[in-house]
Amino acid sequence: MLNCAETAAVLRNWDNILVLSHASPDGDTLGSACALMRGLLALGKRARFACADTIAPKYGYLFDGMPQEDFAPEHVMTVDVADLSLLGGLREQFEGRIELAVDHHGTHVPFAPQRWVEPHSAATTELVFLLLQELGVGPDRAIADCIYTGLTTDTGCFRYRSVTPRTHRIAAEVIEWGADAGEINRVMFESKSKAQVEAERIVLDGMEFFCGGKCAMVRVPRSVYETTGAADSDLDGVATLPRQIEGVVIGVTLKEKENGEVKASVRTNLPADSARLCARFGGGGHKGAAGCSFPGITMEKAAAQMTAACEDYLRELNLL
Amino acid sequence: MLNCAETAAVLRNWDNILVLSHASPDGDTLGSACALMRGLLALGKRARFACADTIAPKYGYLFDGMPQEDFAPEHVMTVDVADLSLLGGLREQFEGRIELAVDHHGTHVPFAPQRWVEPHSAATTELVFLLLQELGVGPDRAIADCIYTGLTTDTGCFRYRSVTPRTHRIAAEVIEWGADAGEINRVMFESKSKAQVEAERIVLDGMEFFCGGKCAMVRVPRSVYETTGAADSDLDGVATLPRQIEGVVIGVTLKEKENGEVKASVRTNLPADSARLCARFGGGGHKGAAGCSFPGITMEKAAAQMTAACEDYLRELNLL
Repeated sequence: MLNCAETAAVLRNWDNILVLSHASPDGDTLGSACALMRGLLALGKRARFACADTIAPKYGYLFDGMPQEDFAPEHVMTVDVADLSLLGGLREQFEGRIELAVDHHGTHVPFAPQRWVEPHSAATTELVFLLLQELGVGPDRAIADCIYTGLTTDTGCFRYRSVTPRTHRIAAEVIEWGADAGEINRVMFESKSKAQVEAERIVLDGMEFFCGGKCAMVRVPRSVYETTGAADSDLDGVATLPRQIEGVVIGVTLKEKENGEVKASVRTNLPADSARLCARFGGGGHKGAAGCSFPGITMEKAAAQMTAACEDYLRELNLL
Repeated sequence: MLNCAETAAVLRNWDNILVLSHASPDGDTLGSACALMRGLLALGKRARFACADTIAPKYGYLFDGMPQEDFAPEHVMTVDVADLSLLGGLREQFEGRIELAVDHHGTHVPFAPQRWVEPHSAATTELVFLLLQELGVGPDRAIADCIYTGLTTDTGCFRYRSVTPRTHRIAAEVIEWGADAGEINRVMFESKSKAQVEAERIVLDGMEFFCGGKCAMVRVPRSVYETTGAADSDLDGVATLPRQIEGVVIGVTLKEKENGEVKASVRTNLPADSARLCARFGGGGHKGAAGCSFPGITMEKAAAQMTAACEDYLRELNLL
């Protein structure tokens, strides 16, 4: 395991670097990759980017004005990738070729011989910021936007318990560098398509309560996407809603996937532990947020199994 | 106009201080009052609190463990009060007796002979934090919770354009002092009553679009409160929703008040200016958020007038 200075030393000796993001890319993996590449370019190196999936248009500004040269990479590294499988369609091509991983996931499964993993970092862009400082990359507005994007998207705009004093101090620094925090937050948190609003409305209309209001569940059948034209990711935010309701200890969101599998997203308030509940179905995650899958059964059956498990777990906690 | 050091000097010479919050108290006015009182008590002074309205239970922790002595105040001051009228029911009692005002509103109308007003501060608790440092009050967990509460509630959890590097740096400091940021954010932003969820659902179900999707409007008739049991303040968050929809430039929320008056909350995206639109009906506010009233007419008529004004304004901006 490397530290920040050692990671910087590795990069200082490299050129022609390929930076990989995880599949289904989010603001932290893309912000980390773009901030790092911009820094490497500023140091006179060649850097380019790859990701298994297409980038949502709202993240386009991260790449603005950055030259994308095509070259055969000498070195390959990942940012914000917790596990090789999260490279998605790029896994096969790069397995065994990745020399360096920079990540903040507590669940990081090592796959690169050299890695800097800090689970107490709220976002991988926190680490990239420290790395760029170590490399002597100076204040830059475009880098600032990239770093800020990772900080704000991975913390629900500084709302989560993962936020530390360092997270806020780095936010202060990059706003001073010129990060357009207000606009980034508007795009990331205050912009919904009509299809998304319509889909959320349908889903929330069907919210069910059980265990005397201590559990709330919403279901997202495939028909919602067909009726509204919403994309799968348009309903990502729904998972946080059931838990927000007063008195709810366990909030469950069941989504029917294209392959017929039913996926559960669980969000809990203390003293319940999402990861412990999901472990009953082979899933996992964190205390406040976790997930599990129900392959090969209907939504109806998955809901029944989940309901029974919630009841049982609340009894175990003496909450029922 | 005083600066921070001069304000501290005034307070150093005072004892038996009454701190006033504005009516309909929010997290910033209460956080400011409680942080300041805790600091004054720590310096061996007597301080007490008054507000025209009752404090919502969710703010109870701000007052936890703080002795509330009853004494005849020698000095009276306000925190986060932009105008004498905002003292509500306490105005008459204290008009002419207020010696010091600490505030961050750009619209501050002077009413105290001594005042420290910094409009570029995102919250009044930012100023109170600086003041306590100047007074030599050391790290304290309860004060930290009060300061953080003002920062996060007045900035939508660090989301608004009013946030500066200083806001983030103070957040970092008070988290180091022990502020329970995660729990405060959960209570302030992730906790809704069932009545509130139900009321929001009814209101959003009726969202109307006009001007080719550039305007969105929701209506909150009195019947919503009667049907759901929601309180007026339960629907405060609704005003921000219409503007969040892709393509919407003007978002309007019409609320029927108990006195029959219809109040409009307007939220706009650039290039539209909420304050300019509301000025047509004698209202005002900021560029992004403003309001106006329609006394003595029905919701139906207010909606028609507002719709016509939006159309006219969008034409003026060449957006229609």
